[in-house]
Amino acid sequence: MSSPIQPIKQNASMVVFGASGDLAKKKTFPALFSLYKDGRLPSDLVIVGYARSNIEPNDFIERITQFIKIDDNDSETKKKLEDFKTRCTYYRGSYDGVDSFQGLNKHLLEREGDREERNRVFYLALPPDVFVSVSTHLKQQCYPQKGAARLIIEKPFGFDLDSARELQSKLDPLFHENEIYRIDHYLGKEMVQNLTHLRFCNPIISHLWNKESISNVQITFKEPIGTEGRGGYFDTSTIVRDIVQNHLVQVLSLVTMEPPTSLAAGDLRDAKVQALRRTRLGELKDVVFGQYVKSKDGKHPGYLDDETVPEGSRCPTYSAIPFFVDNDRWDGVPFLLKAGKAMNTGKVEVRVQFKPVTNGLFKDSHRNELVIRVQPNEAVYFKMNIKQPGISSEPLLTDLDLTYKNRFTNMKLHEAYEALFYDAFVGDQSRFARIDELECAWTLVGPLLEYMEKEKPQPAPYEYGSEGPECLGEFLQKFGYVYDNPNYYEYPVTNLPDDK
Amino acid sequence: MSSPIQPIKQNASMVVFGASGDLAKKKTFPALFSLYKDGRLPSDLVIVGYARSNIEPNDFIERITQFIKIDDNDSETKKKLEDFKTRCTYYRGSYDGVDSFQGLNKHLLEREGDREERNRVFYLALPPDVFVSVSTHLKQQCYPQKGAARLIIEKPFGFDLDSARELQSKLDPLFHENEIYRIDHYLGKEMVQNLTHLRFCNPIISHLWNKESISNVQITFKEPIGTEGRGGYFDTSTIVRDIVQNHLVQVLSLVTMEPPTSLAAGDLRDAKVQALRRTRLGELKDVVFGQYVKSKDGKHPGYLDDETVPEGSRCPTYSAIPFFVDNDRWDGVPFLLKAGKAMNTGKVEVRVQFKPVTNGLFKDSHRNELVIRVQPNEAVYFKMNIKQPGISSEPLLTDLDLTYKNRFTNMKLHEAYEALFYDAFVGDQSRFARIDELECAWTLVGPLLEYMEKEKPQPAPYEYGSEGPECLGEFLQKFGYVYDNPNYYEYPVTNLPDDK
Amino acid sequence: MSSPIQPIKQNASMVVFGASGDLAKKKTFPALFSLYKDGRLPSDLVIVGYARSNIEPNDFIERITQFIKIDDNDSETKKKLEDFKTRCTYYRGSYDGVDSFQGLNKHLLEREGDREERNRVFYLALPPDVFVSVSTHLKQQCYPQKGAARLIIEKPFGFDLDSARELQSKLDPLFHENEIYRIDHYLGKEMVQNLTHLRFCNPIISHLWNKESISNVQITFKEPIGTEGRGGYFDTSTIVRDIVQNHLVQVLSLVTMEPPTSLAAGDLRDAKVQALRRTRLGELKDVVFGQYVKSKDGKHPGYLDDETVPEGSRCPTYSAIPFFVDNDRWDGVPFLLKAGKAMNTGKVEVRVQFKPVTNGLFKDSHRNELVIRVQPNEAVYFKMNIKQPGISSEPLLTDLDLTYKNRFTNMKLHEAYEALFYDAFVGDQSRFARIDELECAWTLVGPLLEYMEKEKPQPAPYEYGSEGPECLGEFLQKFGYVYDNPNYYEYPVTNLPDDK
Amino acid sequence: MSSPIQPIKQNASMVVFGASGDLAKKKTFPALFSLYKDGRLPSDLVIVGYARSNIEPNDFIERITQFIKIDDNDSETKKKLEDFKTRCTYYRGSYDGVDSFQGLNKHLLEREGDREERNRVFYLALPPDVFVSVSTHLKQQCYPQKGAARLIIEKPFGFDLDSARELQSKLDPLFHENEIYRIDHYLGKEMVQNLTHLRFCNPIISHLWNKESISNVQITFKEPIGTEGRGGYFDTSTIVRDIVQNHLVQVLSLVTMEPPTSLAAGDLRDAKVQALRRTRLGELKDVVFGQYVKSKDGKHPGYLDDETVPEGSRCPTYSAIPFFVDNDRWDGVPFLLKAGKAMNTGKVEVRVQFKPVTNGLFKDSHRNELVIRVQPNEAVYFKMNIKQPGISSEPLLTDLDLTYKNRFTNMKLHEAYEALFYDAFVGDQSRFARIDELECAWTLVGPLLEYMEKEKPQPAPYEYGSEGPECLGEFLQKFGYVYDNPNYYEYPVTNLPDDK
Repeated sequence: MSSPIQPIKQNASMVVFGASGDLAKKKTFPALFSLYKDGRLPSDLVIVGYARSNIEPNDFIERITQFIKIDDNDSETKKKLEDFKTRCTYYRGSYDGVDSFQGLNKHLLEREGDREERNRVFYLALPPDVFVSVSTHLKQQCYPQKGAARLIIEKPFGFDLDSARELQSKLDPLFHENEIYRIDHYLGKEMVQNLTHLRFCNPIISHLWNKESISNVQITFKEPIGTEGRGGYFDTSTIVRDIVQNHLVQVLSLVTMEPPTSLAAGDLRDAKVQALRRTRLGELKDVVFGQYVKSKDGKHPGYLDDETVPEGSRCPTYSAIPFFVDNDRWDGVPFLLKAGKAMNTGKVEVRVQFKPVTNGLFKDSHRNELVIRVQPNEAVYFKMNIKQPGISSEPLLTDLDLTYKNRFTNMKLHEAYEALFYDAFVGDQSRFARIDELECAWTLVGPLLEYMEKEKPQPAPYEYGSEGPECLGEFLQKFGYVYDNPNYYEYPVTNLPDDK
Repeated sequence: MSSPIQPIKQNASMVVFGASGDLAKKKTFPALFSLYKDGRLPSDLVIVGYARSNIEPNDFIERITQFIKIDDNDSETKKKLEDFKTRCTYYRGSYDGVDSFQGLNKHLLEREGDREERNRVFYLALPPDVFVSVSTHLKQQCYPQKGAARLIIEKPFGFDLDSARELQSKLDPLFHENEIYRIDHYLGKEMVQNLTHLRFCNPIISHLWNKESISNVQITFKEPIGTEGRGGYFDTSTIVRDIVQNHLVQVLSLVTMEPPTSLAAGDLRDAKVQALRRTRLGELKDVVFGQYVKSKDGKHPGYLDDETVPEGSRCPTYSAIPFFVDNDRWDGVPFLLKAGKAMNTGKVEVRVQFKPVTNGLFKDSHRNELVIRVQPNEAVYFKMNIKQPGISSEPLLTDLDLTYKNRFTNMKLHEAYEALFYDAFVGDQSRFARIDELECAWTLVGPLLEYMEKEKPQPAPYEYGSEGPECLGEFLQKFGYVYDNPNYYEYPVTNLPDDK
Repeated sequence: MSSPIQPIKQNASMVVFGASGDLAKKKTFPALFSLYKDGRLPSDLVIVGYARSNIEPNDFIERITQFIKIDDNDSETKKKLEDFKTRCTYYRGSYDGVDSFQGLNKHLLEREGDREERNRVFYLALPPDVFVSVSTHLKQQCYPQKGAARLIIEKPFGFDLDSARELQSKLDPLFHENEIYRIDHYLGKEMVQNLTHLRFCNPIISHLWNKESISNVQITFKEPIGTEGRGGYFDTSTIVRDIVQNHLVQVLSLVTMEPPTSLAAGDLRDAKVQALRRTRLGELKDVVFGQYVKSKDGKHPGYLDDETVPEGSRCPTYSAIPFFVDNDRWDGVPFLLKAGKAMNTGKVEVRVQFKPVTNGLFKDSHRNELVIRVQPNEAVYFKMNIKQPGISSEPLLTDLDLTYKNRFTNMKLHEAYEALFYDAFVGDQSRFARIDELECAWTLVGPLLEYMEKEKPQPAPYEYGSEGPECLGEFLQKFGYVYDNPNYYEYPVTNLPDDK
Repeated sequence: MSSPIQPIKQNASMVVFGASGDLAKKKTFPALFSLYKDGRLPSDLVIVGYARSNIEPNDFIERITQFIKIDDNDSETKKKLEDFKTRCTYYRGSYDGVDSFQGLNKHLLEREGDREERNRVFYLALPPDVFVSVSTHLKQQCYPQKGAARLIIEKPFGFDLDSARELQSKLDPLFHENEIYRIDHYLGKEMVQNLTHLRFCNPIISHLWNKESISNVQITFKEPIGTEGRGGYFDTSTIVRDIVQNHLVQVLSLVTMEPPTSLAAGDLRDAKVQALRRTRLGELKDVVFGQYVKSKDGKHPGYLDDETVPEGSRCPTYSAIPFFVDNDRWDGVPFLLKAGKAMNTGKVEVRVQFKPVTNGLFKDSHRNELVIRVQPNEAVYFKMNIKQPGISSEPLLTDLDLTYKNRFTNMKLHEAYEALFYDAFVGDQSRFARIDELECAWTLVGPLLEYMEKEKPQPAPYEYGSEGPECLGEFLQKFGYVYDNPNYYEYPVTNLPDDK
């Protein structure tokens, strides 16, 4: 029942740390410009890029705008981009020197000019080892005497429960939880945000959202590319830290949480934490680990072929992990978190498979499913049975579909970063991870990380570009998933089978 | 647990009574040919048209095939039509003379030739006042000594409970219930048949199919034309007998019945009867009666302008009637049966509106609905809420859609009559009305008919081509229906509202 | 929707066939007198005992009243008994001679005197091999020209499905189903009748009556005595025919049926049949068969020690059989029908064990149960958990109890036969078995009977006076029953465990 | 996820403020002795009574032990009492002078002697106007340098939301929430504690605990005596502050909360707060206010006859207030909080009335209820229907009962204070009110308090010793409560009605 956080509407600055990196040019600045263009940022916003590199002002501007695409005829937007550029400056500094931050403060003061208050947003797209140092200096040198300070932190937040807690213990004296915005950019994705709406605006879904109706849930992440030379970092991270512990567990908590007391950030995150605390890892022996090998056609290298990967590494690039939520709603329902690199396709989706019908009337009806496709090609659809059109009385599998791009015109789906930066200015923390959420997530996968470290289980091989390790079928079957796509089942148009 | 009815696969004849009428040429023979073409009729089928008119054989053949459309290039079908014609003969006779039926039998024997058994299907598309006479003569003169007899009877079956029982009491000594196929052609419609599949093949629907989830159900029939000179018959029938008591009550029983013990005809009809026996008419004072008047543009006459209509008639051409089903599943849920002629559109649909969400989280979410559109343009869709795509967090009303013609290629939806004739040969009575179903239906609307007769309530006027009487809005509101279509809501493509 | 059966209020006769047998003196006539005493029989009732034995009238009267106990001071009842005696006569006759039945008719006419109509109830407590002969003669010689005839038939009705159907096919031309009252005296027991009330008058029970709440159901019959010299008959019957197929399956159908359309006999029996038709036997390999051997103390002989039992018989005197009901309500819930002779106690009960709690909050809570004790000492109670009274927070198992004899004063629980004879006069068939119920019951146990006949499985031995075969524990565990009675759990008073 | 509070097992002291008052002698010291006797207090506990009165040490000991009853023959307990007395001393001091608290500290040090740590429990049974002063001095003079401090505060905690917040704001700098134990002694009552067990250990209850099953809930407090000369205090408090806002709202939250994440104090109180935040007051116009007048026999005076009551006071001594909980579980279910003084009996109970059956089979079945009687004579029972024993088929209302004193031997039900003091030493805060619970409770009744203050509604009169104001019947009916006790319904023995 604490007082709500106020939006930053003016007197605003933002410092982007790590401004010389890829993320900055590919995501950060395009997202900021997109918000700027739509009038969603404070009109007097000062933007400072900060990094250690020596970059010329002009080069910087060019660098951060190179991925912004504007239609040649769109003079209005072009003009806005010119405006936007004037708001952006670059400041070179180290991540551990007092001088640098004193300098940054001075630079900010100059850019900001006279202001009643100074609202400053610090975005740390930095390696975790400099989080504390940068935060400390910011608190000491750049923290506004009057006005709001917000610290946006990129993942990873810790390497395990202990390290996350240690990191937090160092931030604790510097910034209040209300000032910290820990990014998990999955929380900014349209369809992940949509989960709350789907579940809590629709009685037809909320009535089904329990163990009585649901047989199993899959949360799947597939990336079509491998580590591609960046295996060094990945090898210590593994697919579990890289994808599961953060992104997929966040989605899991949104899928499983009870209705929150309100939609306020505090209540939403309470509900997520409460769900995660009732969640437990299934048995370790059931976890599937995989590591990709050379593609069938030999064109794509295996993980161990990546020169940055330690020889003989057993790092899983694929994992399928069962979780259970021990409460009245979910008792006994497996939640299968599957993530892999170098797969046959790129896809993120939540697939809810319902229990079979129990009236015993139709022998050949098919499993019902609700699929929420997060990316690409956002969609929500129910797979269900109808009578095969015609004389036949056979059940036919089809679906009730909502594919966004087919249904909506003038749709603008925002990049996750846009939504999140917008929220940070507005002061809405609901789509950022609170510290206890992270602790829960680390606690949840803790036994798995420990097991991986101690036992170094041999991952099952799967070919680059395939659907994952072979044992995956057995894994899914064990947890009740029935693969049930008859031959004729196709989207968006089904060619009906013979009318018998 | 009686022994199942055997299909008629050969040694088959069919007599179409009323063969000179409109139905015969528009529906009956086209349907028969369609089945014949697809090889769904006994290969040795003899078809005899029977009526009182004096028609030349050739004229008859031309008459009954005039509505059969064949593509010019489709020589195969053309050939089949020629074959079909050779199977059809016309026999002129009265409906009450022994001689006529002796003659018919002789004609049949000639056409049938030598047969081990004679399976005869008699289709009575006749006014009810000759049912008994024809049935009696058929039993005495044309009933096969060896082989199956089936009597297909067109509606109406009685004028009220008493007359229906009287009629049945006269059929009882002649034909066994297993031999009688009372047609309600709505039971042959694709989407009406589909109701059983939708409900019992899909846990996502069956879990929602109860008073906990459902607020109200509308079963709606709209016809865009008036009586158009046939008001004489209609005036005694009224919209209640013409549409509600038979077609809509049949749909109602399929919507409300418990899962039957099996899909066998006996079990299905038991389930329907059991549901109807728990069904009751709402309060008479709540019933809406309407009678159409001249259209706004004056082009279409009012009901009373029809010269065949008695002067000052209070016959309702529109009615909206509440029903309730007093059992555990449906206690308190209103089923609103709405039927009207001379409306703004032609449409038959079942619209299930769900209760609102009760978590109190979103203020502006919209009502969920499941719509099953029987005709035209068969479709099933859920109306539901998503997050408005974009920055906004508002709930947006949209739907998960299955429109048959968009989804299925090579689809052939059969005319109701095709399905029903097919069933009659196969011996599947599940889509014909059993006598106790009819008795239930008459019992159900009995108080209403009595009220109409005694009180002669003044129907509310509505313009030809309009949406019905004005008081309809109040009626729907009273029974919990919330009309909830925001401006932007459109199908198949929605233009999104502003992203706030 | 047939017209209801009229009660017999006067002009009444009853013929008790098999009047010289044990049942007659122990049950039939005491039950008739009890009804007579309470004014529940027609005031002009004529009662005729019929058998083949040569019995003097006085001896007969003495014989049939010897088990009627009247308090010495109860002069009113004594007087009623004298009245009752005057209504009873004995007629000696054969079961297959026309003369006998002509004589019976004459005897009846004499006793009845002048009557407007003659309502006659024939009670056949006879071996099944004379059912048809007696019924035929009754129809021909004693069937009233004006007035109602009712045929009450004792079990067994057939030996298997075929024989039951054959028997019925012979009764069919003689008596209408509405005239036949097939006794299963379990349906007359107070607590069996109460099942309908418990289930359909109490939302607290009806809300729990489904697979979501219920883990497993046991229907248990225990008799403390063995065959005791009557093993000859029993050996062909086996415990399955003797107890399970009739009594326990009847109870099963009352436990599992859906709410009937009404409480009328037809609807109730429809509901039972519909439930039985969705019921199936579990796997044969899971069935437990037992045969009792000598008691531990050697005082009671084993089944094979009974001289009337064929040597080496494998006839089961105990069986535990799993059934399942394949519908939405019961999918997956095992119904365990257990019956045995020569057990540790005499008891009939229905025990519903609920699924465990799934909130994960309390580690040591106990299983909830609903127990309906049919006999002896009628009771209904919920086993459930409370906080252990005192400082401790441990869950404590106790119960919410309704033991009839403790709760009700001036209670008169009737013998099953009283209730059933009363119903026969009233014309209420709801507590008699309709032919399709019996067919279903035979169909249900058919595979088991066949298996027993073909495979002659060796029953597991259990000691006379024990709790049954040892493998019973495994059987129960397999089907989810958790035996969960902590040491302290006692009825009616619990000594609380230490308050920790 | 904060670290749990450690129990105080030794090195313990307790200071009882307000030691000269009635509560101290009647409740506090008897409760402490009871715990001491059972070995539930730290063995080295030092107890100091503190008050402003001048009391001789011996008088004090006698005073505080006068209500402790020991059986004459129970020498063991007598000896324990003597031991106990030696642990108790009295210290006279003011509530606002530094000296007094310095003196108290010195006194404590002397009594405690050498200790590794000093764990001190301060129990403030004081008027709220000295809470802050005493707390401040305690923090400054008596707070242990090493060891735990616990502050137990008696109600009332504030007079409304503002005053509660102000009070808390003053405690905030002194004691951490983990150190504050706000007493609501209802939370210590056996049956209130039992609520959690009943709800979460029993699937048969948890399945029913929702709007689908429950029609309405009453939480009732009845006191058989009036203000009896203490009306002065009561008049500003009113029945709303005296009973409803604290005790009944606490019970309400335990009845309505969702299953907590765990039984730990933090989680339990989170669940309660979340429930309270979804709770709202019904409409003010529906609230019933009553004020008692002279009893019918004239022996008991009316409220206004109490000389300490302001003339013409409109202070309600009775209120019946509807609340609603706006979430999925409880939407639309009224929770009726009823409290009154000078009633016909003394009773506290929770009465859950279930919705009626909806199968339409029995016309005369009675409403099911679950009653949890908190005091006197602790009990839990279901009111439900059975078949009337005997020939009749009427539903009969009876109950499945658990009356503690009949069922349990060697039961010792503790006074609420015992349980709470025990918890305070153990460090279990789950049965103490957290500050946000209190804020919620004040928020909840805020509009009511405001209304009473502004509008000063005239309370309805009711006679001392009656069942409350007459309009109560209408109130209950409006919110769906059906009073349904047939004449024959009695406990513990029912005399059955005639067997028809």
